[in-house]
Amino acid sequence: MDIATLAGVSQATVSRVLQNSDKVHPDTRQRVLDILKQTDYAPNIWAQAMKNNRSDSIGIVVSRITNPLYPEILDIVSELLTSRGKRMIVWNGEGSGEEAALSGIEQSLVDGVLFTTATDNSIALHRALALDAPAVMINRTVDLPGCVSVTSDNYSGGVQVAEYFVKHGRHRIGLLPGSRAASTLRGREDGFRNVLERLGIDIFVPNIPVQEISHGYGRDAMAALLHTCGEIDAVFCINDLVALGAMDALLKVGLRVPEDVWVVGFDDISMASWETNSLSTVRQPIETMVREGVDLLLKRIDRIDEESRVLPVEFIPRRSTAYS
Amino acid sequence: MDIATLAGVSQATVSRVLQNSDKVHPDTRQRVLDILKQTDYAPNIWAQAMKNNRSDSIGIVVSRITNPLYPEILDIVSELLTSRGKRMIVWNGEGSGEEAALSGIEQSLVDGVLFTTATDNSIALHRALALDAPAVMINRTVDLPGCVSVTSDNYSGGVQVAEYFVKHGRHRIGLLPGSRAASTLRGREDGFRNVLERLGIDIFVPNIPVQEISHGYGRDAMAALLHTCGEIDAVFCINDLVALGAMDALLKVGLRVPEDVWVVGFDDISMASWETNSLSTVRQPIETMVREGVDLLLKRIDRIDEESRVLPVEFIPRRSTAYS
Repeated sequence: MDIATLAGVSQATVSRVLQNSDKVHPDTRQRVLDILKQTDYAPNIWAQAMKNNRSDSIGIVVSRITNPLYPEILDIVSELLTSRGKRMIVWNGEGSGEEAALSGIEQSLVDGVLFTTATDNSIALHRALALDAPAVMINRTVDLPGCVSVTSDNYSGGVQVAEYFVKHGRHRIGLLPGSRAASTLRGREDGFRNVLERLGIDIFVPNIPVQEISHGYGRDAMAALLHTCGEIDAVFCINDLVALGAMDALLKVGLRVPEDVWVVGFDDISMASWETNSLSTVRQPIETMVREGVDLLLKRIDRIDEESRVLPVEFIPRRSTAYS
Repeated sequence: MDIATLAGVSQATVSRVLQNSDKVHPDTRQRVLDILKQTDYAPNIWAQAMKNNRSDSIGIVVSRITNPLYPEILDIVSELLTSRGKRMIVWNGEGSGEEAALSGIEQSLVDGVLFTTATDNSIALHRALALDAPAVMINRTVDLPGCVSVTSDNYSGGVQVAEYFVKHGRHRIGLLPGSRAASTLRGREDGFRNVLERLGIDIFVPNIPVQEISHGYGRDAMAALLHTCGEIDAVFCINDLVALGAMDALLKVGLRVPEDVWVVGFDDISMASWETNSLSTVRQPIETMVREGVDLLLKRIDRIDEESRVLPVEFIPRRSTAYS
């Protein structure tokens, strides 16, 4: 490193100065600081942040990073932010991640927060709103004053799945639901139910409690559905990961997809299109949603207000509903 | 929010004070600051960081967050750090993520960095070493002085796969390799090759350039391998994601796994064990690796040096190699 050579000291000494260690002689320290100044060394970010009150970091709250939807979102967010010279701080986990986000907001560690998984009882979200901190929701939203969001039309997606099942003569129809605290999952379920209830078609649901979204939940819920309801010929799973779990449960008991049971998910994560899965699903415009969400957040940080947006979704038929 | 009520001002005014806005009358500002002080409001993190020279944040560099191995690693890291009151900052992408990590290290934004995907030419890693900044590598490592790492015994994993193929009479054996700049992929390939070369068994490789790890690369490489080499009866894929891509390519041309071709991956990401995939693989002890890596990093931040560690791996036979 040039600084050490220019100052005539070791690299370890430069490091100590950068770390504000008191193990450096004041004269040496001053010499290193002078060189750092002369060479336009990047100023300490803390001092910079205190001065202009910007951290140039954006926080993003995700609940289950192991749901492939979230890495796909993070990948796009980090690319967008990096191209604008900003950093991404990820808070993971509905429990502890929320608390970390909360303190990040309170302590101005970030200039703004992107929530991907807000629920009605999200403490970090309520705090952000109370503090009037720049916050934007993507994917999920919450019905609170001051909330701005970019979401997909989940309700319409549920409607499209129900209509597709009916149009193709499916009549023993199952549903693997998710938590109704999540606007996404609630909207999908409501759209799906409303179509079938209007037509007087029963919907079979598993008799196990709704769990957090995971492959294991999809597998267990499907097994429970088969156990309680016997034969079904189509199942709408509340998202793709749950659908992949359901396919596992069907395979395990020797039922074939799509010959015996049609399976549909929601999101269109990239592995839904893999040949081995070929999962019919409702495609969320993930990239557009993230791009518009980041735009909205950066505008709010500059105190420019914009309206929430709802993006259209599209049913994508694949092999899991006998489409070829 | 109580602060506003206690100070007799609006929430917007409190927010302005917190944001250091100059739109607040000095008297009002002082009143709000007094209340904040009285109520033990969390002090501004920047001021705190300047004082004690700790950000309580750890940076983690990942290359392809869309490879499911990395979300699994991030999930464990964030849980470990949160339980210790620390934050995780994620830098994604070999290009821009490296630069963000570099500035984060130079500007003391983080107390230390966990590299998951370092290669010999990683600028952020070289910079961290030059600055004597606390850094630990997990998963991949680099042969440079001062590098501390927790890795799996990738070489032994490659050996185990080759021996398994030979023991079960496979004789037209393919390999889908990865970049030799990554210690993990290089080690696996070397172990695998050395066993087969010693026995005089040819290894077929696709005639396309090695790409970054992705499902698409696995699919294209497998298609190329079949095109150039004709019939093969077993293929070792450099990781699970590549193996899942290879399975897609085989399915597309009507070849059955395992009846026609055995497929083996590496990592044991959770979806390798899904019934629909049932992919034989070499299991990395991911949780142990991350736990020990975080331990090592926190010790280095406290200037306690420890040795690098190499963890044992285990071959996990599943349906993709006719194991039931």
